[in-house]
Amino acid sequence: MNFLVVGVGAVGSVYLAFLSRAGHRAVGLVKKGRSLDRIKVEGIWGEFEQKVNTIDSIEGLDFEPDIVILTVKSYDTDGALEDIKSLKEGKSLLMVAQNGYGNYEKAVKVFGEGRVILARVIFGAKLLEWGLVRITVCGDDVVIGDPSKNIQEAYLKELSEVFSISGIPTRYSPEVYKYLWDKILYNCALNPLGALFEKTYGEIASNPHTRNIMDGIIEEAFEVIKAYSIPTFWSSSEEYRKHFYERLLPPTKDHYPSMLEDVKKGKTEIDALNGALVALAKEKGIYLPLNDLIAKLIRAKEQFSR
Amino acid sequence: MNFLVVGVGAVGSVYLAFLSRAGHRAVGLVKKGRSLDRIKVEGIWGEFEQKVNTIDSIEGLDFEPDIVILTVKSYDTDGALEDIKSLKEGKSLLMVAQNGYGNYEKAVKVFGEGRVILARVIFGAKLLEWGLVRITVCGDDVVIGDPSKNIQEAYLKELSEVFSISGIPTRYSPEVYKYLWDKILYNCALNPLGALFEKTYGEIASNPHTRNIMDGIIEEAFEVIKAYSIPTFWSSSEEYRKHFYERLLPPTKDHYPSMLEDVKKGKTEIDALNGALVALAKEKGIYLPLNDLIAKLIRAKEQFSR
Repeated sequence: MNFLVVGVGAVGSVYLAFLSRAGHRAVGLVKKGRSLDRIKVEGIWGEFEQKVNTIDSIEGLDFEPDIVILTVKSYDTDGALEDIKSLKEGKSLLMVAQNGYGNYEKAVKVFGEGRVILARVIFGAKLLEWGLVRITVCGDDVVIGDPSKNIQEAYLKELSEVFSISGIPTRYSPEVYKYLWDKILYNCALNPLGALFEKTYGEIASNPHTRNIMDGIIEEAFEVIKAYSIPTFWSSSEEYRKHFYERLLPPTKDHYPSMLEDVKKGKTEIDALNGALVALAKEKGIYLPLNDLIAKLIRAKEQFSR
Repeated sequence: MNFLVVGVGAVGSVYLAFLSRAGHRAVGLVKKGRSLDRIKVEGIWGEFEQKVNTIDSIEGLDFEPDIVILTVKSYDTDGALEDIKSLKEGKSLLMVAQNGYGNYEKAVKVFGEGRVILARVIFGAKLLEWGLVRITVCGDDVVIGDPSKNIQEAYLKELSEVFSISGIPTRYSPEVYKYLWDKILYNCALNPLGALFEKTYGEIASNPHTRNIMDGIIEEAFEVIKAYSIPTFWSSSEEYRKHFYERLLPPTKDHYPSMLEDVKKGKTEIDALNGALVALAKEKGIYLPLNDLIAKLIRAKEQFSR
């Protein structure tokens, strides 16, 4: 198959390296001056070095990709969609493999329903240096699907096989949008507090004060979920909290949020996480004081780092 | 005059050293094993080393103090009042030279109105080591007074002269309670954010995000002020904010809050500041989300430091 990977950070490097190694035609779209000819992978999925191809402008693309994998940080989504918008004239499908709320929605606005696949990525990858990525943890398979139900299930199942065989465990689910919100909740609860205090997920969860704040963040998130009738796996915030503390958290307890590294560089995905909850709530006339203050604190820390 | 200084931390060391140097009979009440025979002072009010007397139990007191100066941290107020309660049988006046809300109120409960002087202390002192204190900044005179108006003005004026002549600039004001709230507002806005981000007052005020949070903290504080009809120098939060940013902040912009050192030791006065606002509001059925979350974040950071 033919792939274009947009953004070659941690997640993009993984896709580019694994798909190239599996013999697919894959090229990475990078920023000017950031071309790469090899990527070294280390961590829980083994170590290897792979020759890769990159282009630093969409004009350099000399084939029509079957799948365009969008992996940029949420704050670069608008720019990335602008860069690749010419592809919507062809048949490429866009796969959104990003964090937070708003990326999938923006992609659908540009490419239209039936052209966008949503991927919930929950392995942890860290870009140690440009061209060197470490896979640190894997919470679950990548889950892919089409929330709009326009893309054939058979095709999505086949595509998940392609990724799995390439070495990135992936499965299809018609409920991918629920998986996305599962992760949004997880990230909204843990990432900003981990980034603020520079602590692991486990430390954040075992401190009774941060735990109390996380409970409040989740509580407020469910106000948004109810106001928009967003489909989730849980019927209440209590049910989610149980799942969160008992299932999701323990396997990742020793990890720091990537938002910690991001905040030290002065830019995070807070506007696609707690900031997005606040904005969604506001449209319905609801105020989320906890998430609003948490988002402001992260923006403050970003500002201090600049 | 005869003084007992309860607590020989930063502020207590200043009182004990300056009053002893001026020839007054002064003794410091310290915790067991923390006896001192000299205090070294440095900083903006000059450098000197002074012989001092301390006792580690109230039983060691061999005179009746005219004034008992309470300087312990707010979280030790209950214990300190318990230690000195035998003095209420005599004629000593208690002078509360502490930060935050609740200390004066507790002191009046134990000693009764007419026996308690309130002091608004706004010089900055830092205990570099046990027996070594540096005076770093002086925002204004210490202001003393009796909110209950039972103590003679002439006596309070005379007492402020005694302090001033000893080297601690002090004046009497019938409006001392307004001065206390002035400082409570200042501390609630700046201290927790400075302690959380480990930044100076100036850095906190010039970051637009922390400034926005401070505006919100002040806004909520005025809800308490209105609910209780607390007398202040300002008719609105806007008026206070102007005073705060234009007058109070600039001379102290390079300073870190003492709460930063406190939070690193695992214990702060947050319950007498933002936590006290939240508790006062709650009694009137008002919820202060910003101050509540700020207080929780400080308690979280205290916990991480233990």
